[in-house]
Amino acid sequence: MLHRAVCPGTFDPPTNGHLDVIGRAAAMFDELVVATGVNESKRRLFGDDERVELLRETVAGFGNVTVGTFDGLLVDYCRAEGIGVIVKGVRTAGDYDYELQMALMNRRLTGVETIFLPAAPEHAHLSSSLVKEVARFGGDVSSFVPASVHRRLTEALAR
Amino acid sequence: MLHRAVCPGTFDPPTNGHLDVIGRAAAMFDELVVATGVNESKRRLFGDDERVELLRETVAGFGNVTVGTFDGLLVDYCRAEGIGVIVKGVRTAGDYDYELQMALMNRRLTGVETIFLPAAPEHAHLSSSLVKEVARFGGDVSSFVPASVHRRLTEALAR
Amino acid sequence: MLHRAVCPGTFDPPTNGHLDVIGRAAAMFDELVVATGVNESKRRLFGDDERVELLRETVAGFGNVTVGTFDGLLVDYCRAEGIGVIVKGVRTAGDYDYELQMALMNRRLTGVETIFLPAAPEHAHLSSSLVKEVARFGGDVSSFVPASVHRRLTEALAR
Amino acid sequence: MLHRAVCPGTFDPPTNGHLDVIGRAAAMFDELVVATGVNESKRRLFGDDERVELLRETVAGFGNVTVGTFDGLLVDYCRAEGIGVIVKGVRTAGDYDYELQMALMNRRLTGVETIFLPAAPEHAHLSSSLVKEVARFGGDVSSFVPASVHRRLTEALAR
Amino acid sequence: MLHRAVCPGTFDPPTNGHLDVIGRAAAMFDELVVATGVNESKRRLFGDDERVELLRETVAGFGNVTVGTFDGLLVDYCRAEGIGVIVKGVRTAGDYDYELQMALMNRRLTGVETIFLPAAPEHAHLSSSLVKEVARFGGDVSSFVPASVHRRLTEALAR
Amino acid sequence: MLHRAVCPGTFDPPTNGHLDVIGRAAAMFDELVVATGVNESKRRLFGDDERVELLRETVAGFGNVTVGTFDGLLVDYCRAEGIGVIVKGVRTAGDYDYELQMALMNRRLTGVETIFLPAAPEHAHLSSSLVKEVARFGGDVSSFVPASVHRRLTEALAR
Repeated sequence: MLHRAVCPGTFDPPTNGHLDVIGRAAAMFDELVVATGVNESKRRLFGDDERVELLRETVAGFGNVTVGTFDGLLVDYCRAEGIGVIVKGVRTAGDYDYELQMALMNRRLTGVETIFLPAAPEHAHLSSSLVKEVARFGGDVSSFVPASVHRRLTEALAR
Repeated sequence: MLHRAVCPGTFDPPTNGHLDVIGRAAAMFDELVVATGVNESKRRLFGDDERVELLRETVAGFGNVTVGTFDGLLVDYCRAEGIGVIVKGVRTAGDYDYELQMALMNRRLTGVETIFLPAAPEHAHLSSSLVKEVARFGGDVSSFVPASVHRRLTEALAR
Repeated sequence: MLHRAVCPGTFDPPTNGHLDVIGRAAAMFDELVVATGVNESKRRLFGDDERVELLRETVAGFGNVTVGTFDGLLVDYCRAEGIGVIVKGVRTAGDYDYELQMALMNRRLTGVETIFLPAAPEHAHLSSSLVKEVARFGGDVSSFVPASVHRRLTEALAR
Repeated sequence: MLHRAVCPGTFDPPTNGHLDVIGRAAAMFDELVVATGVNESKRRLFGDDERVELLRETVAGFGNVTVGTFDGLLVDYCRAEGIGVIVKGVRTAGDYDYELQMALMNRRLTGVETIFLPAAPEHAHLSSSLVKEVARFGGDVSSFVPASVHRRLTEALAR
Repeated sequence: MLHRAVCPGTFDPPTNGHLDVIGRAAAMFDELVVATGVNESKRRLFGDDERVELLRETVAGFGNVTVGTFDGLLVDYCRAEGIGVIVKGVRTAGDYDYELQMALMNRRLTGVETIFLPAAPEHAHLSSSLVKEVARFGGDVSSFVPASVHRRLTEALAR
Repeated sequence: MLHRAVCPGTFDPPTNGHLDVIGRAAAMFDELVVATGVNESKRRLFGDDERVELLRETVAGFGNVTVGTFDGLLVDYCRAEGIGVIVKGVRTAGDYDYELQMALMNRRLTGVETIFLPAAPEHAHLSSSLVKEVARFGGDVSSFVPASVHRRLTEALAR
């Protein structure tokens, strides 16, 4: 039996924290899809195509990781793709509390499971929004995101 | 590649909450070992052999689940058995907070990963110690533990 | 002495989680008012009148529950209506943390008490906003809201 | 309909924090029983009879509060006494997390409800065990416990 | 060696909770700067100059407290001003969880430390946003903010 | 004015997590006392004298850090030594919740303040009890404690 999992997120942009969770999840399952929601009404720094491209570059080193998109319920995407497990990185107890409701809802909707992977402590300070805020004010975020993301982030903030 | 995981615990005794987590973890991995620590100095209601026997009966219905014991560090057991993932069921944010330190320690020691599986809400009130406390005072716990556990629990409390 | 309590909320729309908390609170007090804030600047899916109507249908089965509205401070409403207790359903520790500040403030302002009622585990995945999000993407929410709410929700999202 | 509630605890000894919760709960229900478990194997500073006596003195000022004892499951006591609601004072989110499991268990066993009453901030630093620890080392706890408790506590620690 | 610390915040407006934390922090360090971010895109009730003025009046009684502004990263401000410690008041565990990520990020960026000072329980119900909400609906907030802030708040809400 | 702070703990034994908090606190205050309770009834792996000796070796590199002992209330020790601030390292929100009550109690007793310093993420997995447990089962803890502690820990466990 082939075990497929999905690592969902906005990834606006992907950080080294995401990369770490993806790499560790990839080692646990036969195939891992990193999937981002598209056609959402929320404003992002990076558009749908840009985020997919950033993700592709970010996961290029993993043999069993692909990038996907979904524009509805994540559980419908999982069902269509034969994915039984959602992987979420969590940092603090507050993160867990926040994600728990969605995990329970997803399980009720289609039976898809969510597992929580504790973030590596050295990335506990990272989130896409905080990285963007620091970068916006001229802070050095080069050690917080993959190199290709860093280049694009600098460009995007200069737009 | 074969994915092996372990579901560790004291299981004094196994509850329907444990059974639920075991069944869901068994569906995520090729092989799952349910392992309990033995030769510990702590007092248990059920001895080492009894707990192993209760676990064997509890997991009998799963084709890919076996029962094991360890009497040292769980991470050493994982290394010896070729297990890369520890599965812990968690209920609340407080549970997560408590388990996080051990998960980080285990990862530091040998690189073994811990994933957290949210308990099914209908089992959120269950723990081995609470079940024992209720049973000790004559409360009906038949819907909280597997049938074979219930029989043995009644006998053990009558000792 | 007559004990009156209020169960405040936005109820945009009422869910089965709300209904459960209302029913259990109704059994604890002589009279329970389910009250929703009106004339607020926040955007809702259902207007003030619609929410009141949905609530009336939702609580129709309880003999001691009425529906009210307030357009200022909840504590002023409580004082005007002779209500001494606010009932809030909470799911997780995070919910409690969030509601605590408001409860302490309300007590300081007029002495009105707030009691927290733990949500039934089978409704732990429910919130008005999550139900709307799932429904918006075509998910089946019929088991998450009262039947009359379900019909109106389908209509409202088709607007 | 008469609304009866119980405020359970060890009360070893009662503190001003307990007294505050008892007084506020007494205002919400027609009758309130303050009940303490007896014949338990745990060691207490004050014996069963002493704690009952301390409680009686503590609640003497409330017309609708009585003191009771139970030596089995609290839910059995509630059923025998026609009590439908358990009142627990909680301070922090951690307190809530800890009490939640017991509340859910009690509800499953007999349907009895548990409501959580947030501790008054001015008593957030109080617990029976901390008061005893401070008193044992000669700290002044006279503002943390009722006067009669203070006298007995001083005597008990001098034994 | 001179120990300088900063107490950062939006202070829209300063409350008695802020004042309490400032006074206690001022007693721990040789010099304390109360600093507020300016030129931000977020909408405030009080403009940059007004908030600085309110802060000046609020801290006038402390000999070693000054008011500052920053319009970039707080850590850059700290470096420029020779400040080694950021002081944040926290109320609940949820507050701590929220502030922790920023504290870790700031430490990573420049090595500046963040210390958390638990809010005095009697101010646990206070936040600038809740005070504004209560005042907006005509609630009496005179015991929640310094007198000068109260006067200005009344004026601002009447605009 | 000279700012003195205390970093209290059991230190059975000191870990690199303690060492990190001590070093960071030492940089914030003119003088820091690392103090451990003695003559307590609790069983420790290391006796009072041993813990003091281990602490002395651990803090030898800091010019403004001394080691002290107290055998009553920490607040009495602070008053006697002219110490106005207690420094506690915290890891998670659960840690904060646990320490908060003691901090509020200490402030009520004598006005002494407690500040919380977030543990460095790379030490989030460390506690004296977990280090002892790992070492007891033959795990390598050499990177978790100072070198002198490691040597003594190995000896103590071989007793």
